[in-house]
Amino acid sequence: MPTLDPGIGEKFSRRTRRAINHDGSFNVRRRGGPHRHDPYQWLIQMDWWPFIGLVVVFFTVLNVAFAGAYMALGLEDLPGVAAPRGAVQDFLSALFFSIQTFTSVGYGHVYPGTNATGFLSSVEALVGVLTFALATGLLYGRFSRPTARIHFSRTAIISRRADGTPCLQFRIANQRNNILIDLQARVLLKTVHPATNDQTYALLPLERDAISFFPLSWTIVHDITPESPLHSLIAADYERLDVEIIIQLKAYDDTFAQDVHARNSYTHDEIEWHRRFIRAYEVDNDGIAVLDLDMVHQTEAL
Amino acid sequence: MPTLDPGIGEKFSRRTRRAINHDGSFNVRRRGGPHRHDPYQWLIQMDWWPFIGLVVVFFTVLNVAFAGAYMALGLEDLPGVAAPRGAVQDFLSALFFSIQTFTSVGYGHVYPGTNATGFLSSVEALVGVLTFALATGLLYGRFSRPTARIHFSRTAIISRRADGTPCLQFRIANQRNNILIDLQARVLLKTVHPATNDQTYALLPLERDAISFFPLSWTIVHDITPESPLHSLIAADYERLDVEIIIQLKAYDDTFAQDVHARNSYTHDEIEWHRRFIRAYEVDNDGIAVLDLDMVHQTEAL
Amino acid sequence: MPTLDPGIGEKFSRRTRRAINHDGSFNVRRRGGPHRHDPYQWLIQMDWWPFIGLVVVFFTVLNVAFAGAYMALGLEDLPGVAAPRGAVQDFLSALFFSIQTFTSVGYGHVYPGTNATGFLSSVEALVGVLTFALATGLLYGRFSRPTARIHFSRTAIISRRADGTPCLQFRIANQRNNILIDLQARVLLKTVHPATNDQTYALLPLERDAISFFPLSWTIVHDITPESPLHSLIAADYERLDVEIIIQLKAYDDTFAQDVHARNSYTHDEIEWHRRFIRAYEVDNDGIAVLDLDMVHQTEAL
Amino acid sequence: MPTLDPGIGEKFSRRTRRAINHDGSFNVRRRGGPHRHDPYQWLIQMDWWPFIGLVVVFFTVLNVAFAGAYMALGLEDLPGVAAPRGAVQDFLSALFFSIQTFTSVGYGHVYPGTNATGFLSSVEALVGVLTFALATGLLYGRFSRPTARIHFSRTAIISRRADGTPCLQFRIANQRNNILIDLQARVLLKTVHPATNDQTYALLPLERDAISFFPLSWTIVHDITPESPLHSLIAADYERLDVEIIIQLKAYDDTFAQDVHARNSYTHDEIEWHRRFIRAYEVDNDGIAVLDLDMVHQTEAL
Repeated sequence: MPTLDPGIGEKFSRRTRRAINHDGSFNVRRRGGPHRHDPYQWLIQMDWWPFIGLVVVFFTVLNVAFAGAYMALGLEDLPGVAAPRGAVQDFLSALFFSIQTFTSVGYGHVYPGTNATGFLSSVEALVGVLTFALATGLLYGRFSRPTARIHFSRTAIISRRADGTPCLQFRIANQRNNILIDLQARVLLKTVHPATNDQTYALLPLERDAISFFPLSWTIVHDITPESPLHSLIAADYERLDVEIIIQLKAYDDTFAQDVHARNSYTHDEIEWHRRFIRAYEVDNDGIAVLDLDMVHQTEAL
Repeated sequence: MPTLDPGIGEKFSRRTRRAINHDGSFNVRRRGGPHRHDPYQWLIQMDWWPFIGLVVVFFTVLNVAFAGAYMALGLEDLPGVAAPRGAVQDFLSALFFSIQTFTSVGYGHVYPGTNATGFLSSVEALVGVLTFALATGLLYGRFSRPTARIHFSRTAIISRRADGTPCLQFRIANQRNNILIDLQARVLLKTVHPATNDQTYALLPLERDAISFFPLSWTIVHDITPESPLHSLIAADYERLDVEIIIQLKAYDDTFAQDVHARNSYTHDEIEWHRRFIRAYEVDNDGIAVLDLDMVHQTEAL
Repeated sequence: MPTLDPGIGEKFSRRTRRAINHDGSFNVRRRGGPHRHDPYQWLIQMDWWPFIGLVVVFFTVLNVAFAGAYMALGLEDLPGVAAPRGAVQDFLSALFFSIQTFTSVGYGHVYPGTNATGFLSSVEALVGVLTFALATGLLYGRFSRPTARIHFSRTAIISRRADGTPCLQFRIANQRNNILIDLQARVLLKTVHPATNDQTYALLPLERDAISFFPLSWTIVHDITPESPLHSLIAADYERLDVEIIIQLKAYDDTFAQDVHARNSYTHDEIEWHRRFIRAYEVDNDGIAVLDLDMVHQTEAL
Repeated sequence: MPTLDPGIGEKFSRRTRRAINHDGSFNVRRRGGPHRHDPYQWLIQMDWWPFIGLVVVFFTVLNVAFAGAYMALGLEDLPGVAAPRGAVQDFLSALFFSIQTFTSVGYGHVYPGTNATGFLSSVEALVGVLTFALATGLLYGRFSRPTARIHFSRTAIISRRADGTPCLQFRIANQRNNILIDLQARVLLKTVHPATNDQTYALLPLERDAISFFPLSWTIVHDITPESPLHSLIAADYERLDVEIIIQLKAYDDTFAQDVHARNSYTHDEIEWHRRFIRAYEVDNDGIAVLDLDMVHQTEAL
């Protein structure tokens, strides 16, 4: 049985968590070294609500700072500010003027009446337009990043073919309406030595490791033949060896015209024995096949 | 004859529609599952007129909402609004002020005279610039999405070579002026079992499955040799077996510097028998080859 | 000798021009068929001066049209317009107001004083911001389009190796400072039958068809062995057979992180006999190699 | 031992510097030839501080020029400019008006009062919005350019396997948090003939030349078997032959959905003898592996 380390590591000082999480990330932290963070990557990968919150906070902090600077110069330098004044009202007046400058609205009922405010508002206008130029790029970057949303069955199963051969199976479907083509799959077995914690990897040959089109679900099958590293293992062995089935998928996304990748894994407690998948699609009266994404998880006893 | 499922499915409860439509889409619906829709994908794939309509509706709805909010605060908070007033005139005045803020025009003959309107107009100005940042990204995404516009002959034909070998042919041309290179073709035969509705697939070997350049038309040819799954089938068999010829094309688009893909299929009633293609290009007096896209469909009796 | 049509066509009614021009384009026109033009492709491929001219013309025409509409509504609807008036002055006043609205400058010394001008200026403000959103995408699309600027030697040469083997050579260099890696070359021979005008193609095997790095020049060599389709041809044969050497290059551009392609060809009158290339680079005192792009063309008699 | 020129050159008039610098660039200058510079490439590859400085300088120069033009027309053409006047104050007033036009803030307390200033401010408003359209594209281009930040061990080492086989090793890690997959490595040996300065290249076969995942560090190993071009060379030979180990890496960046490349080299004085690498990761209490990027360099005596 050929073994290979796919780059996840073979020797560890103690038992590690699963190699790959359900979202495709690895259980690894980084420490030391120069300049590890890429702000662009962080800003386009974060969720939408935190991103919007960050935009609002950034916009507010910057405008409060400029408002403070206008106040320091004195509001008599901003003709048009409404009387009567007070500290709070002055701050609000300065803040509104700042925002009107930053967003380049510039009503003009308040305007920079001195060289100092003329200069400061010029700087703010430039900062403002460049900030929105940056925001434009970030919004586009967030939207256009191609990501495969592959729907994996919640569990892998140990099933049995018509000819009696046992097999490991799991099922995937495209969660989105975009068209994925030339889908390729690679499945690895990770086992951990119970005593030494050494991790061993083996490629599991598949009944079929690529499909041209992916409009419906795809059941990926590894036959547990005598040559399979899973041969003669029972459920207790899976737990003892801390079995993890590692999956790597690659496809061409016809909407974004780019390759997309997905990763996932099933640990030994995510494998069901003696089950088979129930077909996840049917044909409607109009001859159109209907795929039920919730059915992708459905199995029944053999 | 080796058979393979390209991922379209083999077992169906009843007869399905054609596997692939002329626009490259599949006859599949999705149901259930989490979060299936990607708004970006939807916004860049929809046609131009609905997209422009959507932009106008979005712009109008947002500004009507802000206008309502300004009216709720009272138009006396917006100094500069013209007298005499009335409900309709107030709404229009508020709407025009809102649009001037949203687009950051900000003439200033009307301006926010209180803290409430100052705050509301600040929020609107931020929403406005971010909306146009988003619109910028969407417009770029729509334009820059690479798509192959391959012109397929309306019918496939059953023709005959000079040596008497029958062959299946269809013809393609590049509909646009961009340069496609390294074009690859893959052709599959789908047949349906008349009794069980089981679908079977077979790869049809081609006379030539790739070309380096694609300035003219390309006639794709499958020789119906004794090894071909089409051998000894007559027109009635094509109908009985619900024959569908499935085509997958891949090329490199030298304008967009990206791979592009195209799909199409011919059903049994889109196949003409005993025809041959008429050459679709000629050479002009100046030595330049002229490709007539309308001629791509032209066939004549053998 | 194996022959293949790379997709350029074998049968022509008369003699055609060269297959590939020096800028990589083909000598083919398109006629008929639906919707052949892609405006985005046209706008990002045109030269900079016509593009800038087009932007100015588009901006001017649109603003003249809006100015006309404001005049039709009557300039008394735009309070702030300076007296005394006249047709020309009115038009200019309307035009300046239009431009201030379109670019969202909106000084406000002139402003829409009625519902009609309020509505019209609202529409213009929206058209304006969307136009600049579009311009942003076009400018980015023009800049970011990866293109290989490969510098080809002006002529190909028939040279002779140290062991006496004759060979066909040409030389290329990267015209720009970006880093190209994994460069691949493919060279085809096109000959035309003097009587029938049939075009025949043959792949010319290369001494080396790929290099990992491309910081200097690369001399691409086809040995004219007895197996070569060029074997025993003399200069007069090249002309009689209308020889064209067709070159296809592919590389990975490390600046744009995308594959780039280039094409070129040498016709029989662009081939020099019994020459060799003079080395195009030397080493400076500081140990840095200096490539002289003008030297790429330099040959000397054998 | 098969030799190959990876495109760096074999014949040089004198000794050259290292082929590849630590930042992946080549020690090559370009001279002559047409139009070698691509401003976009230059603007997206320069560091952030020079880029920001350039934006500020460009913005300032353009606005100073427009301010000069407004002064030449006379400030009485810009109603609203504050009295009393003087050359410096006039220039500042014109500059502030210019910036308010360029950024489309347009407060309007100063406005173009004549046709000449109306025309000039219209041109400036168009130049302004197009400039920020360009800035948007440049900012996005700078951010979205995929670059692999591979952390190379400071030195390569000559180590020894458990079975006594000597080997050349170096170690890499991903410096950033983005996910790299399908990493491929290619290692070349460059030697220089001490007398002729001819450069010879040989591919060094690797224990493993690709890994699927790259969450931790990867030690790349060339076994110095009797077939290795490094066999029987001692440290003094490395110096005499000016040995350079050239590394080419390729990976798929799952964040940017694009291939990324990296290059580096070790010269003979960057190779340590009789060392081995200390493991660069450990497992935390929570089962998560922790990679210490500073440890990637750590070696110990055999």
